[in-house]
Amino acid sequence: MPSISLKGTNMPASPIRKLVPYADGAKKRGTKVYHLNIGQPDLETPKAFWDKLAHMDMKVLAYCPSDGIGTYKEKFSQYYNKLGIKVDPSNFIITNGGSEALLFTMMSCINEGDEVIIPEPMYANYIGFATSSNVTVKPIPCSIENGFALPAISEFEKLINTKTKAILICNPNNPTGYLYSREELETLRGLALKYDLYLFVDEVYREFVYGDSEHFSALNLEGLDNHVVVIDSISKRFSACGARIGALITRNKDVLAAAMKFAQARLSPPSLGQIAGEGLFDLGQDYYDSIKTEYKYRRDLMVSLLNQIPGVKCPTPGGAFYAVAQLPVDDADAFCQWMLESFSYQGATVMMAPASGFYSTKGSGKNEVRIAYVLNGDDLTKAMECLGEGLKEYKGLAISKEKILV
Amino acid sequence: MPSISLKGTNMPASPIRKLVPYADGAKKRGTKVYHLNIGQPDLETPKAFWDKLAHMDMKVLAYCPSDGIGTYKEKFSQYYNKLGIKVDPSNFIITNGGSEALLFTMMSCINEGDEVIIPEPMYANYIGFATSSNVTVKPIPCSIENGFALPAISEFEKLINTKTKAILICNPNNPTGYLYSREELETLRGLALKYDLYLFVDEVYREFVYGDSEHFSALNLEGLDNHVVVIDSISKRFSACGARIGALITRNKDVLAAAMKFAQARLSPPSLGQIAGEGLFDLGQDYYDSIKTEYKYRRDLMVSLLNQIPGVKCPTPGGAFYAVAQLPVDDADAFCQWMLESFSYQGATVMMAPASGFYSTKGSGKNEVRIAYVLNGDDLTKAMECLGEGLKEYKGLAISKEKILV
Repeated sequence: MPSISLKGTNMPASPIRKLVPYADGAKKRGTKVYHLNIGQPDLETPKAFWDKLAHMDMKVLAYCPSDGIGTYKEKFSQYYNKLGIKVDPSNFIITNGGSEALLFTMMSCINEGDEVIIPEPMYANYIGFATSSNVTVKPIPCSIENGFALPAISEFEKLINTKTKAILICNPNNPTGYLYSREELETLRGLALKYDLYLFVDEVYREFVYGDSEHFSALNLEGLDNHVVVIDSISKRFSACGARIGALITRNKDVLAAAMKFAQARLSPPSLGQIAGEGLFDLGQDYYDSIKTEYKYRRDLMVSLLNQIPGVKCPTPGGAFYAVAQLPVDDADAFCQWMLESFSYQGATVMMAPASGFYSTKGSGKNEVRIAYVLNGDDLTKAMECLGEGLKEYKGLAISKEKILV
Repeated sequence: MPSISLKGTNMPASPIRKLVPYADGAKKRGTKVYHLNIGQPDLETPKAFWDKLAHMDMKVLAYCPSDGIGTYKEKFSQYYNKLGIKVDPSNFIITNGGSEALLFTMMSCINEGDEVIIPEPMYANYIGFATSSNVTVKPIPCSIENGFALPAISEFEKLINTKTKAILICNPNNPTGYLYSREELETLRGLALKYDLYLFVDEVYREFVYGDSEHFSALNLEGLDNHVVVIDSISKRFSACGARIGALITRNKDVLAAAMKFAQARLSPPSLGQIAGEGLFDLGQDYYDSIKTEYKYRRDLMVSLLNQIPGVKCPTPGGAFYAVAQLPVDDADAFCQWMLESFSYQGATVMMAPASGFYSTKGSGKNEVRIAYVLNGDDLTKAMECLGEGLKEYKGLAISKEKILV
């Protein structure tokens, strides 16, 4: 029997999805599962999308151009222009979700064995795409104590060597929800220029920013046209995760040309999601305001309820719809599995993503979880109550075990 | 300015799509372009697909499971069962087109620098996926003289060494249209067992088989459950290229587990194409019969017309909707570009894919083109006439040039 590859062995399992069999088990037993593990918004996909889909005037569902449908790219770039970002359709390559955009970016820009610096905790799949591309991730630790803010410039410089080719951030951040300030981005600009590094910025949560803070796009950093590659997607912004429509956006023509060859090899991104998705960019400010209001309400509710649970610590995130919380447990992986396998409260349990999978440094984040606040306020309240009860029972079990051992 | 990666540099441009700017130029000048360059069927996507799409009863277009929607996998495996192939949904991972299935297969099964043997000419994008995965392609030359049949077993054995991990074929073949016989597959089975190799078989053209021959699936080769990975897609079978729904099918549990991790990293394949596509597997034999009848008619027409053009040679392919033809030119790349840039006949020209891009051996296939017969009979007839006139004029130009040089 032929063996599988080293890459296949080393590829990490998704911390977001690896507990799915336990969740399925809980559901089979009749337990309701509150899904806080995955960034799957519950808000409705806008009507404009479904309307377009119901009235497709096509006979043949053909391939589209490898870099996406022209009119779709046009609409997408106009949305950027409205945000004050100067790009045109030629700066876009439409991809199979933000995932593929990131894979193309890594493959186009970084040689095997070269390094990309990523603040950790980091979006777990960055580690997967780096494994796929043979790129080495150099994590730079952030601290829950300051809400996971950008580490000091000196910490970055300690990691930079001849193999360093890029810095990758997600802004606002998945999994921490941290919103990088303009000043922090200027810091990264300085590093990119000083060491001639790429700056990859995943801005899929750009519109999810709460309070008075504003999102500052890396595409607006001065003098960095050849350094910045932005990853985007309609998945979260428009509750359209299943469309699998993302984009790679850059002004660097060499990167566009290289990425286009990877795009050609897989022929084209999905046509349906683009055709139905064109109308989404016509949605007005009221659409964005309404989702912001809803998520801000949920964030405030969840963070407040979390911090009321004894032993739980959760900073208030500035954006996205995630938070990383510290739990009073030794091993959040075991706890999250136990919640699905062995616990229920009023017929329900909670599914979270253990944070260990969001750390590239082995052993980090053992007592943390990522929570996505993608449930309505009522369910979120019930889920937090359930989590509190779960922690209480789990702690009780641990004490009984200790007593038995003694 | 940071440089792009070696992989980005080495990635081949698609021979199918690289002439697109010249075709666009021709269209701008008002010249009609007969597209024989790309395997984009002109037949209508079945009504079942559009009906389903027009009546989607959803509010949120959510991610689906990383390995695809359960009911879709069920339908897909039932289609296999009807063909006499014993598989169940657990053998399937649904992918972003056949392209991603092949990428996952290579990444899961082959270490960097290890080798896969592929008969050439080969589907151009195999070279691209191998480049993406750092896999070395070892081409095994086939000859137009015997219609691109499988080379002798001794030729394979000359190439097999400790780095050889797999043999990859496309059956029926893209670009040659060659249909491998059951005997040829049994030969490959022998090699796979003797040298413990994977056998990857791209069967996306399975239903496009003409005359009395039958397609024999590699999944029905005895004792090869852990060796065979089949690539499939709904793109060609149901004229649904833009849906981007493919599949990796294998009984090897280790390969499924490894591929699942790559699948999880990109979250999910497109939901819409799967939901709308479920009904396609209910289409009866009359659907398959009608497309076979149409493509057989086109094949016979095109091959006959091609062979009537002085200096053109084209074997009769047994399946798929491609043929590789030898043209009386020194450099088919230059000729194909000239056809788009400088030639028209009755207001039209023909776009073909130069075959050089389907050879991994540099310098091979210089006087060959791949032609996809994805136009109706009338257009195909006009396109062949146009090609004949183009060759006549091109030859005349070459003679005038020679005279000038003399």
